[in-house]
Amino acid sequence: MDAAISQNELALAARNHGLPLEALRYPITPVGLHYLLIHYDIPDVDADAFSLRIDGRVAKPVTLSLPDLRERSDHEVTSTMECAGNGRALLAPHVVSQPWLLEAIGTGRWRGVRLKEILEDAELLDDAVEVVFTGLDRGLEKGVEQNYQRSLALDDALGDDVLLAYEMNGAPLLPQHGFPLRLLVPGWYGMTSVKWLTRIEVVAEPFPGYQMTAGYRFRRDEDDEGHPVTRIQPRSLMVPPGIPDFDTRARIVDAGPCPLQGRAWSGWAPITHVEVSTDGGDTWADAELEPLGSRWAWRGWRYEWNAGEPGEYVLCCRASDEAGNVQPDEPIWNVGGYSNNALQRVPVTVQ
Amino acid sequence: MDAAISQNELALAARNHGLPLEALRYPITPVGLHYLLIHYDIPDVDADAFSLRIDGRVAKPVTLSLPDLRERSDHEVTSTMECAGNGRALLAPHVVSQPWLLEAIGTGRWRGVRLKEILEDAELLDDAVEVVFTGLDRGLEKGVEQNYQRSLALDDALGDDVLLAYEMNGAPLLPQHGFPLRLLVPGWYGMTSVKWLTRIEVVAEPFPGYQMTAGYRFRRDEDDEGHPVTRIQPRSLMVPPGIPDFDTRARIVDAGPCPLQGRAWSGWAPITHVEVSTDGGDTWADAELEPLGSRWAWRGWRYEWNAGEPGEYVLCCRASDEAGNVQPDEPIWNVGGYSNNALQRVPVTVQ
Repeated sequence: MDAAISQNELALAARNHGLPLEALRYPITPVGLHYLLIHYDIPDVDADAFSLRIDGRVAKPVTLSLPDLRERSDHEVTSTMECAGNGRALLAPHVVSQPWLLEAIGTGRWRGVRLKEILEDAELLDDAVEVVFTGLDRGLEKGVEQNYQRSLALDDALGDDVLLAYEMNGAPLLPQHGFPLRLLVPGWYGMTSVKWLTRIEVVAEPFPGYQMTAGYRFRRDEDDEGHPVTRIQPRSLMVPPGIPDFDTRARIVDAGPCPLQGRAWSGWAPITHVEVSTDGGDTWADAELEPLGSRWAWRGWRYEWNAGEPGEYVLCCRASDEAGNVQPDEPIWNVGGYSNNALQRVPVTVQ
Repeated sequence: MDAAISQNELALAARNHGLPLEALRYPITPVGLHYLLIHYDIPDVDADAFSLRIDGRVAKPVTLSLPDLRERSDHEVTSTMECAGNGRALLAPHVVSQPWLLEAIGTGRWRGVRLKEILEDAELLDDAVEVVFTGLDRGLEKGVEQNYQRSLALDDALGDDVLLAYEMNGAPLLPQHGFPLRLLVPGWYGMTSVKWLTRIEVVAEPFPGYQMTAGYRFRRDEDDEGHPVTRIQPRSLMVPPGIPDFDTRARIVDAGPCPLQGRAWSGWAPITHVEVSTDGGDTWADAELEPLGSRWAWRGWRYEWNAGEPGEYVLCCRASDEAGNVQPDEPIWNVGGYSNNALQRVPVTVQ
């Protein structure tokens, strides 16, 4: 748990942004607090010159400007996004990459046009199997120079809430969130929602790009071909109660009633339970859930803890979804450090 | 240079935000890309219940609501803010705290009321020497429980551009920038610009609070009483050219013309020169400066580099101000890791 972080990883941690966990209090994450994971650099995009090309295995390839997209019927989705690498820095042995603890999350109100309407208008050919999304951001990974690219199987791409988004929280996308246009695939880890989207290509074979075949695979060891990282595993996080110590982030809580609150989400199915433990996971009690809102947004919860006696406590929370997925006590180690949804543990000192 | 970062420091790096250096391209930092250093937690403030108390050594103590402040005459200042700890993680031996490399900066358009007008209306008494600013944020540092508090000498507090700011970049302050009200002291390191400001107390003795006497002092060793960290030392940073490697952030540049651009600032006096080196600091040439804008905002610069020959290069830039301050080649180590304004070095591979 106390793995040392190298200067290279620190450079990643310093430029990518996490959600300070007290900001879990907001149902919609305020601008600037949503997590950011940017593989290369934020590109400098001229919105007036911007275009989106849709081609490949379609009968009617087309190039759309931003005004073309904005004059189409729009759709809004409130969606929780999480980085597939969230929890990576809590894995042992240490996995070298962006060193997230638990803060690579956020919830936005995304507005744009439905991808399925764009694809329907382009008329998919019979041999279409996947859709490849290309961003304007360019860099190297493990020696491979590339624009950021990810693909989706046709069924996933045609989902009702999959957006080509041009707005977040009621304003044009910020540069760091993909201005002027990004893909938004609710329920999937964030690597799927390609930012600075400039091309959509329909293909007849599974796309073998770096981010599909080398990155974002759940592999138990270097020899394991593994399986793709896709939807968000269930997770619950709490607002750490009390006040923090600056250097250690350790929490101090005054004895007495101490309401706990947090949020839970799963990309597989709606959240059905959140349980809370105040003794490090030995015993559990049900938290009270807020009513279900957007299918794709986190669900708020609350638990009335009475921090009666001074001493040391470890608070935990555990989410379950309607598909029967439950957060594990311990993570499953994997080469890329993906989808670690093990329980959050918040040590607190009651005084 | 390759000091290992502990899990506690990683927790700080994960919740505080840096400016991705390519965002130096924007003269005003887009919302959400300005650096953030939050000592404790972002407080949950009810703007309707919010008030600012002005008292102490004044003839007319007063309590002001947000509407009271907003109906006064307003003033806008474009100001570059930098964390006093910027560059800390580049010091050797390693200094344990928020591990900034070079990205703890940003420039905002701040709007609010002039502090001097508020103090004049409150009528300072003859024995007033300092003004103490208290935030709503509360936590512990080195065992001392405290609200965040800093003071300013009267002369500094009465500066023309010192604001009680309620807007940033044309919108109400975001929670993480001090909503609903913060102090803004242009030219000083960011610790001076107290966020979530709730009380202004005029005092007749120098304020002995933690952030004045224990934190934010430049001390050569543990026995050194040191001197206060105050104004921003001159610094220049460049947009790293070319494209990055994800894991290492190393830069690849295509051979040929490669315009370099960046920004430079100093809290002591206007920037007069920026020099650029493409051989690691052996030889230097003048960059072209943009016209002077706001006294308190960074100044843009540009240098037409011809990356003619493939190979390894180290790019540097060096700022000088009108007061004769010049960035040093190497930092001065100090206990708190403050005001390291040594040259930025950007290794690039030309291919």
